[in-house]
Amino acid sequence: MDSRPLILVTNDDGIKAPGLRRLIEIMRKLGDVVAISSEQVMSGMAHAVTIQTPLMPRLLKDQEGYQEYVTNGTPTDNVKLGKHRLLDRTPDLVVSGINHGSNASINIIYSGTMAAVLEASIDGIPAIGFSLCDYMPDADFSHVEEWIIRITKKVLNEGLPKGVCLNVNIPRISDEPIKGIKVCRQAESRWVEEFEERKDPYGRTYYWLGGRFENGDKRSETDEKALAENYISVVPVQFDFTAHEQVGKMNFE
Amino acid sequence: MDSRPLILVTNDDGIKAPGLRRLIEIMRKLGDVVAISSEQVMSGMAHAVTIQTPLMPRLLKDQEGYQEYVTNGTPTDNVKLGKHRLLDRTPDLVVSGINHGSNASINIIYSGTMAAVLEASIDGIPAIGFSLCDYMPDADFSHVEEWIIRITKKVLNEGLPKGVCLNVNIPRISDEPIKGIKVCRQAESRWVEEFEERKDPYGRTYYWLGGRFENGDKRSETDEKALAENYISVVPVQFDFTAHEQVGKMNFE
Repeated sequence: MDSRPLILVTNDDGIKAPGLRRLIEIMRKLGDVVAISSEQVMSGMAHAVTIQTPLMPRLLKDQEGYQEYVTNGTPTDNVKLGKHRLLDRTPDLVVSGINHGSNASINIIYSGTMAAVLEASIDGIPAIGFSLCDYMPDADFSHVEEWIIRITKKVLNEGLPKGVCLNVNIPRISDEPIKGIKVCRQAESRWVEEFEERKDPYGRTYYWLGGRFENGDKRSETDEKALAENYISVVPVQFDFTAHEQVGKMNFE
Repeated sequence: MDSRPLILVTNDDGIKAPGLRRLIEIMRKLGDVVAISSEQVMSGMAHAVTIQTPLMPRLLKDQEGYQEYVTNGTPTDNVKLGKHRLLDRTPDLVVSGINHGSNASINIIYSGTMAAVLEASIDGIPAIGFSLCDYMPDADFSHVEEWIIRITKKVLNEGLPKGVCLNVNIPRISDEPIKGIKVCRQAESRWVEEFEERKDPYGRTYYWLGGRFENGDKRSETDEKALAENYISVVPVQFDFTAHEQVGKMNFE
Protein backbone atom coordinates (compact mmCIF):
# COMPACT_ATOMS: atom_id res chain seq x y z
CA MET A 1 0.00 0.00 0.00
CA ASP A 2 2.88 2.41 0.72
CA SER A 3 3.72 2.79 -2.95
CA ARG A 4 0.25 4.09 -3.80
CA PRO A 5 0.08 7.87 -3.91
CA LEU A 6 -1.89 9.63 -1.17
CA ILE A 7 -4.52 11.93 -2.67
CA LEU A 8 -6.52 14.54 -0.74
CA VAL A 9 -9.90 15.18 -2.39
CA THR A 10 -12.02 18.21 -1.59
CA ASN A 11 -14.57 20.52 -3.24
CA ASP A 12 -16.78 23.53 -2.56
CA ASP A 13 -20.24 22.12 -3.31
CA GLY A 14 -20.45 20.26 0.00
CA ILE A 15 -20.03 16.62 1.00
CA LYS A 16 -23.18 15.43 -0.77
CA ALA A 17 -22.35 16.86 -4.21
CA PRO A 18 -22.41 14.30 -7.05
CA GLY A 19 -19.28 15.95 -8.49
CA LEU A 20 -17.32 15.13 -5.32
CA ARG A 21 -18.59 11.55 -5.32
CA ARG A 22 -17.46 11.11 -8.95
CA LEU A 23 -14.01 12.57 -8.21
CA ILE A 24 -13.55 10.28 -5.19
CA GLU A 25 -14.42 7.23 -7.33
CA ILE A 26 -11.94 8.24 -10.01
CA MET A 27 -9.14 9.05 -7.56
CA ARG A 28 -9.54 5.73 -5.74
CA LYS A 29 -8.41 4.07 -8.99
CA LEU A 30 -5.17 6.03 -8.78
CA GLY A 31 -4.23 6.02 -5.11
CA ASP A 32 -5.21 6.04 -1.46
CA VAL A 33 -7.75 8.77 -0.87
CA VAL A 34 -8.69 11.02 2.04
CA ALA A 35 -11.78 13.09 1.22
CA ILE A 36 -12.46 16.18 3.35
CA SER A 37 -15.52 18.20 2.50
CA SER A 38 -17.88 20.69 4.07
CA GLU A 39 -21.26 20.06 5.65
CA GLN A 40 -22.57 23.22 3.97
CA VAL A 41 -22.36 24.29 0.35
CA MET A 42 -19.28 26.54 0.11
CA SER A 43 -19.79 27.74 -3.44
CA GLY A 44 -18.60 31.33 -3.84
CA MET A 45 -16.57 31.20 -0.62
CA ALA A 46 -13.33 31.89 -2.49
CA HIS A 47 -10.23 31.67 -0.28
CA ALA A 48 -12.12 32.29 2.99
CA VAL A 49 -10.54 30.88 6.16
CA THR A 50 -12.35 30.29 9.45
CA ILE A 51 -10.77 32.32 12.24
CA GLN A 52 -13.81 33.40 14.31
CA THR A 53 -14.89 29.85 15.23
CA PRO A 54 -13.08 26.52 15.69
CA LEU A 55 -13.15 23.67 13.19
CA MET A 56 -14.72 20.34 14.08
CA PRO A 57 -13.98 17.56 11.57
CA ARG A 58 -15.89 14.27 11.87
CA LEU A 59 -14.62 10.98 10.48
CA LEU A 60 -17.46 9.43 8.45
CA LYS A 61 -15.71 6.49 6.75
CA ASP A 62 -12.49 4.66 7.57
CA GLN A 63 -11.70 1.88 5.13
CA GLU A 64 -8.56 0.35 3.63
CA GLY A 65 -7.17 3.11 1.41
CA TYR A 66 -10.10 5.46 1.97
CA GLN A 67 -11.11 7.92 4.67
CA GLU A 68 -13.84 10.51 4.53
CA TYR A 69 -14.26 13.55 6.80
CA VAL A 70 -16.94 16.20 6.97
CA THR A 71 -16.16 19.61 8.50
CA ASN A 72 -17.75 22.94 9.36
CA GLY A 73 -14.98 24.73 7.45
CA THR A 74 -14.35 26.20 4.03
CA PRO A 75 -12.44 24.49 1.19
CA THR A 76 -9.27 26.34 2.26
CA ASP A 77 -9.79 25.18 5.87
CA ASN A 78 -10.23 21.62 4.65
CA VAL A 79 -6.87 21.60 2.89
CA LYS A 80 -5.15 23.15 5.92
CA LEU A 81 -6.81 20.64 8.29
CA GLY A 82 -5.96 17.75 6.00
CA LYS A 83 -2.35 18.63 5.66
CA HIS A 84 -1.71 19.54 9.28
CA ARG A 85 -4.03 17.29 11.27
CA LEU A 86 -6.07 14.64 9.46
CA LEU A 87 -3.54 13.01 7.11
CA ASP A 88 -0.62 11.08 8.52
CA ARG A 89 1.70 12.49 5.87
CA THR A 90 1.78 15.30 3.31
CA PRO A 91 -0.39 14.21 0.36
CA ASP A 92 1.21 13.60 -3.02
CA LEU A 93 -1.63 15.42 -4.70
CA VAL A 94 -4.64 17.58 -3.84
CA VAL A 95 -7.61 17.52 -6.22
CA SER A 96 -10.73 19.65 -5.87
CA GLY A 97 -14.11 19.29 -7.53
CA ILE A 98 -15.65 18.18 -9.69
CA ASN A 99 -17.26 21.60 -9.45
CA HIS A 100 -20.82 21.96 -10.65
CA GLY A 101 -20.21 24.94 -12.95
CA SER A 102 -17.36 26.64 -14.77
CA ASN A 103 -14.35 28.07 -12.96
CA ALA A 104 -12.85 29.43 -16.17
CA SER A 105 -11.77 33.05 -16.59
CA ILE A 106 -12.72 35.45 -13.73
CA ASN A 107 -14.74 32.74 -11.94
CA ILE A 108 -11.47 31.55 -10.44
CA ILE A 109 -11.42 34.53 -8.06
CA TYR A 110 -14.79 33.59 -6.45
CA SER A 111 -14.15 29.85 -6.48
CA GLY A 112 -13.81 27.72 -3.37
CA THR A 113 -12.81 24.80 -5.61
CA MET A 114 -9.79 26.68 -6.90
CA ALA A 115 -9.02 28.23 -3.50
CA ALA A 116 -8.38 24.72 -2.15
CA VAL A 117 -6.05 24.11 -5.08
CA LEU A 118 -4.17 27.37 -4.58
CA GLU A 119 -3.88 26.66 -0.83
CA ALA A 120 -2.19 23.32 -1.56
CA SER A 121 0.08 24.99 -4.07
CA ILE A 122 1.19 27.64 -1.54
CA ASP A 123 2.30 24.70 0.61
CA GLY A 124 4.22 23.16 -2.31
CA ILE A 125 1.78 20.30 -2.99
CA PRO A 126 0.83 19.54 -6.64
CA ALA A 127 -2.85 20.38 -7.03
CA ILE A 128 -5.57 20.32 -9.68
CA GLY A 129 -9.09 21.78 -9.73
CA PHE A 130 -11.67 20.09 -11.94
CA SER A 131 -14.88 21.84 -12.98
CA LEU A 132 -17.67 20.82 -15.31
CA CYS A 133 -19.36 23.61 -17.25
CA ASP A 134 -22.80 22.54 -16.05
CA TYR A 135 -24.32 24.12 -12.95
CA MET A 136 -27.11 21.59 -12.49
CA PRO A 137 -27.05 19.32 -9.40
CA ASP A 138 -27.89 16.39 -11.72
CA ALA A 139 -25.16 17.28 -14.25
CA ASP A 140 -23.97 14.36 -16.39
CA PHE A 141 -20.38 13.45 -15.42
CA SER A 142 -20.16 10.32 -17.59
CA HIS A 143 -17.69 11.77 -20.12
CA VAL A 144 -15.14 13.17 -17.66
CA GLU A 145 -13.28 10.13 -16.34
CA GLU A 146 -10.79 9.43 -19.11
CA TRP A 147 -9.71 13.09 -19.22
CA ILE A 148 -9.38 13.46 -15.47
CA ILE A 149 -7.31 10.28 -15.31
CA ARG A 150 -5.04 11.41 -18.12
CA ILE A 151 -4.34 14.81 -16.52
CA THR A 152 -3.99 13.40 -12.99
CA LYS A 153 -1.62 10.59 -14.03
CA LYS A 154 0.63 13.07 -15.78
CA VAL A 155 0.77 15.29 -12.69
CA LEU A 156 1.36 12.30 -10.37
CA ASN A 157 4.20 11.09 -12.61
CA GLU A 158 5.85 14.39 -13.48
CA GLY A 159 4.76 16.82 -10.75
CA LEU A 160 4.16 20.50 -11.42
CA PRO A 161 6.57 23.44 -11.41
CA LYS A 162 7.00 25.08 -7.98
CA GLY A 163 4.11 27.43 -7.16
CA VAL A 164 2.02 26.32 -10.16
CA CYS A 165 -1.31 24.48 -9.99
CA LEU A 166 -3.93 23.65 -12.61
CA ASN A 167 -7.42 25.00 -13.29
CA VAL A 168 -9.12 22.37 -15.47
CA ASN A 169 -12.54 23.06 -16.98
CA ILE A 170 -14.49 20.44 -18.89
CA PRO A 171 -17.25 21.19 -21.42
CA ARG A 172 -20.68 19.85 -20.56
CA ILE A 173 -21.69 16.64 -22.29
CA SER A 174 -22.98 17.00 -25.85
CA ASP A 175 -23.41 14.94 -29.02
CA GLU A 176 -19.99 16.08 -30.20
CA PRO A 177 -17.09 14.33 -28.47
CA ILE A 178 -14.52 16.45 -26.63
CA LYS A 179 -11.77 17.44 -29.06
CA GLY A 180 -8.82 17.32 -26.68
CA ILE A 181 -6.99 19.38 -24.06
CA LYS A 182 -5.77 22.94 -24.56
CA VAL A 183 -3.33 24.66 -22.20
CA CYS A 184 -4.42 28.28 -22.18
CA ARG A 185 -4.68 31.58 -20.34
CA GLN A 186 -7.46 32.92 -18.12
CA ALA A 187 -9.84 34.97 -20.29
CA GLU A 188 -10.46 38.60 -19.33
CA SER A 189 -14.17 38.34 -18.77
CA ARG A 190 -16.52 39.40 -16.00
CA TRP A 191 -19.98 39.12 -14.51
CA VAL A 192 -22.45 41.84 -15.34
CA GLU A 193 -24.40 42.02 -12.09
CA GLU A 194 -28.10 42.43 -11.81
CA PHE A 195 -29.31 42.50 -8.21
CA GLU A 196 -32.94 41.49 -7.99
CA GLU A 197 -34.76 43.79 -5.56
CA ARG A 198 -37.53 42.45 -3.28
CA LYS A 199 -39.43 43.62 -0.21
CA ASP A 200 -39.71 41.50 2.93
CA PRO A 201 -43.05 41.26 4.82
CA TYR A 202 -41.96 44.25 6.93
CA GLY A 203 -41.28 46.48 3.93
CA ARG A 204 -37.51 46.25 4.07
CA THR A 205 -35.61 46.07 0.79
CA TYR A 206 -33.34 43.11 0.08
CA TYR A 207 -31.35 41.94 -2.91
CA TRP A 208 -30.47 38.62 -4.53
CA LEU A 209 -27.21 38.58 -6.43
CA GLY A 210 -27.73 37.54 -10.03
CA GLY A 211 -26.17 38.42 -13.31
CA ARG A 212 -24.89 37.18 -16.59
CA PHE A 213 -21.42 36.26 -17.68
CA GLU A 214 -19.82 38.43 -20.35
CA ASN A 215 -16.70 37.35 -22.20
CA GLY A 216 -15.26 40.43 -23.86
CA ASP A 217 -11.92 38.72 -24.48
CA LYS A 218 -11.63 37.93 -28.18
CA ARG A 219 -8.04 36.66 -28.10
CA SER A 220 -7.29 33.09 -29.03
CA GLU A 221 -5.54 30.99 -26.38
CA THR A 222 -8.07 31.78 -23.64
CA ASP A 223 -9.88 29.18 -21.56
CA GLU A 224 -13.28 30.51 -22.67
CA LYS A 225 -12.31 30.08 -26.34
CA ALA A 226 -11.08 26.51 -25.77
CA LEU A 227 -14.30 25.57 -23.96
CA ALA A 228 -16.48 27.17 -26.65
CA GLU A 229 -14.70 24.95 -29.18
CA ASN A 230 -15.36 21.85 -27.06
CA TYR A 231 -11.83 21.47 -25.75
CA ILE A 232 -10.94 20.91 -22.11
CA SER A 233 -9.13 24.03 -20.87
CA VAL A 234 -6.10 23.73 -18.58
CA VAL A 235 -4.83 27.01 -17.15
CA PRO A 236 -1.56 26.85 -15.22
CA VAL A 237 -2.23 29.08 -12.22
CA GLN A 238 0.01 30.90 -9.71
CA PHE A 239 -0.62 32.99 -6.61
CA ASP A 240 1.59 36.02 -7.20
CA PHE A 241 -0.87 38.87 -7.74
CA THR A 242 1.85 41.42 -8.61
CA ALA A 243 1.35 43.35 -11.85
CA HIS A 244 5.07 43.02 -12.52
CA GLU A 245 5.18 45.29 -15.56
CA GLN A 246 4.00 48.15 -13.32
CA VAL A 247 6.59 47.78 -10.56
CA GLY A 248 9.29 49.74 -12.35
CA LYS A 249 6.88 52.34 -13.75
CA MET A 250 5.00 53.61 -10.69
CA ASN A 251 6.40 56.23 -8.37
CA PHE A 252 4.81 57.91 -5.34
CA GLU A 253 7.74 60.07 -4.20
CA MET B 1 -20.57 69.38 -5.19
CA ASP B 2 -20.58 67.64 -8.56
CA SER B 3 -16.89 68.30 -9.08
CA ARG B 4 -15.91 66.45 -5.90
CA PRO B 5 -14.91 62.85 -6.58
CA LEU B 6 -17.25 60.11 -5.35
CA ILE B 7 -15.37 57.64 -3.14
CA LEU B 8 -16.71 54.27 -1.98
CA VAL B 9 -15.11 53.21 1.32
CA THR B 10 -15.28 49.66 2.62
CA ASN B 11 -13.23 47.24 4.75
CA ASP B 12 -13.28 43.73 6.16
CA ASP B 13 -13.04 44.39 9.91
CA GLY B 14 -16.71 45.37 10.19
CA ILE B 15 -18.50 48.69 10.49
CA LYS B 16 -17.23 49.46 13.98
CA ALA B 17 -13.51 49.06 13.21
CA PRO B 18 -11.36 52.09 14.11
CA GLY B 19 -9.43 51.60 10.85
CA LEU B 20 -12.62 52.14 8.81
CA ARG B 21 -13.52 55.22 10.85
CA ARG B 22 -10.07 56.69 10.22
CA LEU B 23 -10.27 55.99 6.47
CA ILE B 24 -13.72 57.60 6.23
CA GLU B 25 -12.42 60.75 7.97
CA ILE B 26 -9.46 60.99 5.60
CA MET B 27 -11.52 60.36 2.46
CA ARG B 28 -14.09 63.00 3.41
CA LYS B 29 -11.29 65.55 3.00
CA LEU B 30 -10.87 64.42 -0.60
CA GLY B 31 -14.39 63.85 -1.88
CA ASP B 32 -17.97 62.78 -1.30
CA VAL B 33 -18.01 59.46 0.51
CA VAL B 34 -20.34 56.46 0.62
CA ALA B 35 -19.20 53.95 3.25
CA ILE B 36 -20.56 50.40 3.01
CA SER B 37 -19.38 47.94 5.60
CA SER B 38 -20.43 44.67 7.20
CA GLU B 39 -22.27 44.10 10.46
CA GLN B 40 -19.95 41.18 11.20
CA VAL B 41 -16.17 41.02 11.12
CA MET B 42 -15.25 39.68 7.66
CA SER B 43 -11.55 39.20 8.24
CA GLY B 44 -10.26 36.18 6.32
CA MET B 45 -13.32 36.07 4.07
CA ALA B 46 -11.20 36.61 0.95
CA HIS B 47 -13.27 37.09 -2.22
CA ALA B 48 -16.37 35.32 -0.87
CA VAL B 49 -19.71 36.33 -2.40
CA THR B 50 -23.10 35.72 -0.84
CA ILE B 51 -25.26 33.56 -3.08
CA GLN B 52 -27.16 31.37 -0.60
CA THR B 53 -28.94 34.26 1.15
CA PRO B 54 -30.09 37.72 0.10
CA LEU B 55 -28.35 40.96 1.04
CA MET B 56 -30.08 43.55 3.21
CA PRO B 57 -28.27 46.90 3.37
CA ARG B 58 -29.42 49.50 5.90
CA LEU B 59 -28.80 53.24 5.54
CA LEU B 60 -27.34 54.47 8.85
CA LYS B 61 -26.30 58.03 7.96
CA ASP B 62 -27.38 60.35 5.17
CA GLN B 63 -25.64 63.70 5.27
CA GLU B 64 -24.42 66.23 2.71
CA GLY B 65 -21.54 64.44 0.98
CA TYR B 66 -21.68 61.39 3.23
CA GLN B 67 -23.74 58.23 3.38
CA GLU B 68 -23.12 55.15 5.49
CA TYR B 69 -24.61 51.69 4.99
CA VAL B 70 -24.27 48.50 6.98
CA THR B 71 -24.91 45.12 5.32
CA ASN B 72 -25.02 41.42 6.05
CA GLY B 73 -22.63 40.79 3.15
CA THR B 74 -18.92 40.31 2.55
CA PRO B 75 -16.49 43.02 1.37
CA THR B 76 -16.95 41.79 -2.23
CA ASP B 77 -20.75 41.95 -1.83
CA ASN B 78 -20.43 45.49 -0.49
CA VAL B 79 -18.57 46.71 -3.57
CA LYS B 80 -21.08 44.98 -5.87
CA LEU B 81 -24.04 46.43 -3.96
CA GLY B 82 -22.48 49.87 -3.91
CA LYS B 83 -21.77 49.97 -7.58
CA HIS B 84 -25.03 48.45 -8.76
CA ARG B 85 -27.60 49.61 -6.21
CA LEU B 86 -26.56 52.01 -3.46
CA LEU B 87 -24.56 54.66 -5.33
CA ASP B 88 -26.25 56.88 -7.88
CA ARG B 89 -23.24 56.69 -10.18
CA THR B 90 -20.07 54.64 -10.60
CA PRO B 91 -17.58 55.81 -7.95
CA ASP B 92 -14.37 57.52 -9.05
CA LEU B 93 -12.44 55.47 -6.53
CA VAL B 94 -12.90 52.52 -4.18
CA VAL B 95 -10.75 52.40 -1.04
CA SER B 96 -10.71 49.56 1.47
CA GLY B 97 -9.35 49.45 5.00
CA ILE B 98 -7.59 50.61 6.97
CA ASN B 99 -7.07 46.95 7.75
CA HIS B 100 -5.98 46.02 11.24
CA GLY B 101 -3.03 43.85 10.21
CA SER B 102 -0.72 43.34 7.27
CA ASN B 103 -2.01 42.30 3.85
CA ALA B 104 1.49 42.08 2.42
CA SER B 105 2.82 38.99 0.60
CA ILE B 106 0.58 35.88 0.70
CA ASN B 107 -1.91 37.56 3.08
CA ILE B 108 -3.51 39.15 0.02
CA ILE B 109 -5.09 35.80 -0.92
CA TYR B 110 -7.03 35.54 2.40
CA SER B 111 -7.86 39.23 2.61
CA GLY B 112 -11.36 40.64 2.44
CA THR B 113 -9.84 44.12 2.33
CA MET B 114 -8.01 43.36 -0.88
CA ALA B 115 -10.90 41.32 -2.31
CA ALA B 116 -13.02 44.49 -2.29
CA VAL B 117 -10.21 46.28 -4.11
CA LEU B 118 -9.85 43.54 -6.72
CA GLU B 119 -13.62 43.45 -7.23
CA ALA B 120 -13.63 47.18 -8.05
CA SER B 121 -10.71 46.69 -10.37
CA ILE B 122 -12.48 43.90 -12.30
CA ASP B 123 -15.20 46.46 -12.93
CA GLY B 124 -12.66 49.02 -14.17
CA ILE B 125 -12.78 51.30 -11.09
CA PRO B 126 -9.47 52.59 -9.64
CA ALA B 127 -9.05 51.00 -6.21
CA ILE B 128 -6.63 51.00 -3.28
CA GLY B 129 -6.41 48.80 -0.20
CA PHE B 130 -4.76 50.27 2.90
CA SER B 131 -3.49 48.08 5.73
CA LEU B 132 -1.59 48.90 8.91
CA CYS B 133 0.87 46.27 10.12
CA ASP B 134 -0.69 46.19 13.57
CA TYR B 135 -3.39 43.65 14.38
CA MET B 136 -4.56 45.29 17.61
CA PRO B 137 -8.09 46.76 17.75
CA ASP B 138 -6.59 49.83 19.46
CA ALA B 139 -3.81 50.21 16.85
CA ASP B 140 -2.36 53.73 16.55
CA PHE B 141 -3.36 55.22 13.17
CA SER B 142 -1.99 58.71 13.89
CA HIS B 143 0.92 58.49 11.40
CA VAL B 144 -1.02 57.24 8.37
CA GLU B 145 -2.94 60.27 7.12
CA GLU B 146 -0.30 62.14 5.13
CA TRP B 147 0.71 58.95 3.28
CA ILE B 148 -2.81 57.85 2.51
CA ILE B 149 -3.64 61.33 1.19
CA ARG B 150 -0.53 61.41 -0.98
CA ILE B 151 -1.25 58.03 -2.58
CA THR B 152 -4.99 58.65 -2.96
CA LYS B 153 -4.54 62.10 -4.53
CA LYS B 154 -2.15 60.69 -7.09
CA VAL B 155 -4.62 57.94 -8.04
CA LEU B 156 -7.55 60.39 -8.16
CA ASN B 157 -5.55 62.70 -10.43
CA GLU B 158 -3.84 60.16 -12.68
CA GLY B 159 -5.97 57.02 -12.44
CA LEU B 160 -4.47 53.54 -12.59
CA PRO B 161 -3.66 51.31 -15.57
CA LYS B 162 -6.58 49.11 -16.69
CA GLY B 163 -6.93 46.02 -14.52
CA VAL B 164 -4.40 47.23 -11.94
CA CYS B 165 -5.16 48.15 -8.31
CA LEU B 166 -2.93 48.88 -5.32
CA ASN B 167 -2.11 46.93 -2.17
CA VAL B 168 -0.69 49.50 0.28
CA ASN B 169 0.79 48.36 3.60
CA ILE B 170 1.93 50.80 6.26
CA PRO B 171 4.44 49.98 9.03
CA ARG B 172 3.14 50.25 12.58
CA ILE B 173 4.01 53.42 14.42
CA SER B 174 7.49 53.55 15.94
CA ASP B 175 10.06 56.08 17.13
CA GLU B 176 11.65 56.08 13.69
CA PRO B 177 9.67 58.07 11.09
CA ILE B 178 8.50 56.26 7.94
CA LYS B 179 11.22 56.51 5.29
CA GLY B 180 9.01 56.81 2.22
CA ILE B 181 7.04 54.72 -0.27
CA LYS B 182 8.42 51.74 -2.20
CA VAL B 183 6.66 50.20 -5.18
CA CYS B 184 7.44 46.51 -4.93
CA ARG B 185 6.42 42.91 -5.58
CA GLN B 186 4.47 40.48 -3.41
CA ALA B 187 6.96 38.45 -1.33
CA GLU B 188 6.87 34.66 -1.63
CA SER B 189 6.08 33.90 1.98
CA ARG B 190 3.54 31.74 3.76
CA TRP B 191 1.88 30.84 7.02
CA VAL B 192 3.21 27.86 8.91
CA GLU B 193 0.02 26.51 10.41
CA GLU B 194 -0.34 25.19 13.91
CA PHE B 195 -3.86 24.03 14.71
CA GLU B 196 -4.48 24.08 18.43
CA GLU B 197 -6.39 20.94 19.44
CA ARG B 198 -9.04 21.04 22.19
CA LYS B 199 -11.84 18.80 23.47
CA ASP B 200 -15.40 20.04 23.90
CA PRO B 201 -17.45 19.03 27.01
CA TYR B 202 -18.72 15.98 25.07
CA GLY B 203 -15.24 14.71 24.22
CA ARG B 204 -15.26 15.82 20.61
CA THR B 205 -12.04 17.18 19.12
CA TYR B 206 -11.95 20.66 17.65
CA TYR B 207 -9.22 22.90 16.28
CA TRP B 208 -8.41 26.60 16.31
CA LEU B 209 -6.43 27.85 13.35
CA GLY B 210 -3.20 29.49 14.44
CA GLY B 211 0.26 29.75 13.05
CA ARG B 212 3.21 31.97 12.42
CA PHE B 213 4.20 33.91 9.36
CA GLU B 214 7.37 32.85 7.59
CA ASN B 215 9.06 35.00 4.99
CA GLY B 216 11.46 32.80 3.07
CA ASP B 217 11.82 35.35 0.25
CA LYS B 218 15.22 36.96 0.53
CA ARG B 219 15.02 39.01 -2.67
CA SER B 220 15.09 42.77 -2.52
CA GLU B 221 12.11 44.61 -4.02
CA THR B 222 9.51 42.65 -2.01
CA ASP B 223 6.81 44.22 0.13
CA GLU B 224 8.05 42.39 3.24
CA LYS B 225 11.55 43.84 2.75
CA ALA B 226 10.20 47.37 2.30
CA LEU B 227 8.06 47.09 5.45
CA ALA B 228 10.96 45.65 7.46
CA GLU B 229 12.98 48.73 6.49
CA ASN B 230 10.14 51.05 7.61
CA TYR B 231 8.95 51.98 4.13
CA ILE B 232 5.31 51.91 3.03
CA SER B 233 4.92 49.12 0.45
CA VAL B 234 2.78 49.62 -2.64
CA VAL B 235 2.23 46.48 -4.73
CA PRO B 236 0.48 47.00 -8.08
CA VAL B 237 -1.93 44.06 -8.21
CA GLN B 238 -3.83 42.33 -11.04
CA PHE B 239 -6.37 39.51 -11.21
CA ASP B 240 -4.97 37.32 -13.97
CA PHE B 241 -3.89 34.14 -12.15
CA THR B 242 -2.32 32.57 -15.27
CA ALA B 243 1.26 31.34 -14.88
CA HIS B 244 2.02 32.69 -18.36
CA GLU B 245 5.51 31.25 -18.66
CA GLN B 246 3.97 27.76 -18.36
CA VAL B 247 1.32 28.12 -21.07
CA GLY B 248 3.67 27.31 -23.96
CA LYS B 249 5.51 24.58 -22.03
CA MET B 250 2.76 22.25 -20.79
CA ASN B 251 1.22 19.58 -22.95
CA PHE B 252 -1.40 16.95 -22.08
CA GLU B 253 -1.86 15.37 -25.52
